[in-house]
Amino acid sequence: MAEGGIPIGAALFGSDGTLLGAGHNRRVQNDDPSVHAETDAFRAAGRQRGYRSTIMVTTLSPCWYCSGLVRQFNIGAVLIGESRTFTGGHDWLAEHGVAVTVLDDERCVEMMQNFIAERADLWAEDIGE
Amino acid sequence: MAEGGIPIGAALFGSDGTLLGAGHNRRVQNDDPSVHAETDAFRAAGRQRGYRSTIMVTTLSPCWYCSGLVRQFNIGAVLIGESRTFTGGHDWLAEHGVAVTVLDDERCVEMMQNFIAERADLWAEDIGE
Repeated sequence: MAEGGIPIGAALFGSDGTLLGAGHNRRVQNDDPSVHAETDAFRAAGRQRGYRSTIMVTTLSPCWYCSGLVRQFNIGAVLIGESRTFTGGHDWLAEHGVAVTVLDDERCVEMMQNFIAERADLWAEDIGE
Repeated sequence: MAEGGIPIGAALFGSDGTLLGAGHNRRVQNDDPSVHAETDAFRAAGRQRGYRSTIMVTTLSPCWYCSGLVRQFNIGAVLIGESRTFTGGHDWLAEHGVAVTVLDDERCVEMMQNFIAERADLWAEDIGE
C-alpha cells in the first residue's frame, strides 16, 4: 500500500513452518500484470520438487490465476486472510482436496476496503474487470 | 528445446491479429518455476485494460495455472496446438465461455512426445507431478 501498489501479500511455507518464499502484488511497482502475490511467493520459493506439504498463506482469497497455480502444483493447503472484499477460486480448491482456511481477519478486510474505495480503477484492472 | 528448456510457447494477439506479446516456458533458462509459456506471453503484453477480444495461442493445452490466468482476465479465445500429450483446463475454460480451438497439430505432438521421452523428470517438475 505504501509503495502505491495493490496491497495483497502471500508467502509459501513448508509443513514445519519454514518460509520458502514471500511476495506481494507488484503490478504497479514492476509494471507487470503477471506478478500477483501468490505467483510472486511461488517464484521466490524457487524450483521445488513437490508442493503437497506446503502451505500458501495469502491476505486475500486467491483469484482464478492464483487458484490455478495452487491446483496445478498440488499445494496442499491455503490459509486466507479474508474473502469478503473478493472471492476467487478457494471453494473450487477445497472441492479438489486443498485444505482451505479463511480467517476473516478484520485487518485484511479493512486494508482491501480502503484500497478498493481509493483505487477502484486499479483494482478492476488487476482482476480483469 | 534448443535452449535446453521445456518446449512450450505462447503468444497473445489482439482481435485484428496484432501481436501483443509472445513468450515461452523458461523454468530452466531463468531458473523460475512461475514462467510458463502463457504467463510469459501475458507479461510480455504488458498492462492491458481488458482482454475479452484477445486470443491466447499456445502450443499445448494450458495447465490449470495458465487456464486460471485465462479465466481471471477474461481472455476471449484460446487456440491450442495439441492436447494429446497433456490436457489441462481447456474444457473448463470452454464451459466458462472461452472460445477454445484444439488444432491437434502433429508438429506440436511430436515436439512434446520427444521432450517428455527425453526429460520425463523435468516435465513432471513443470506440471507439479
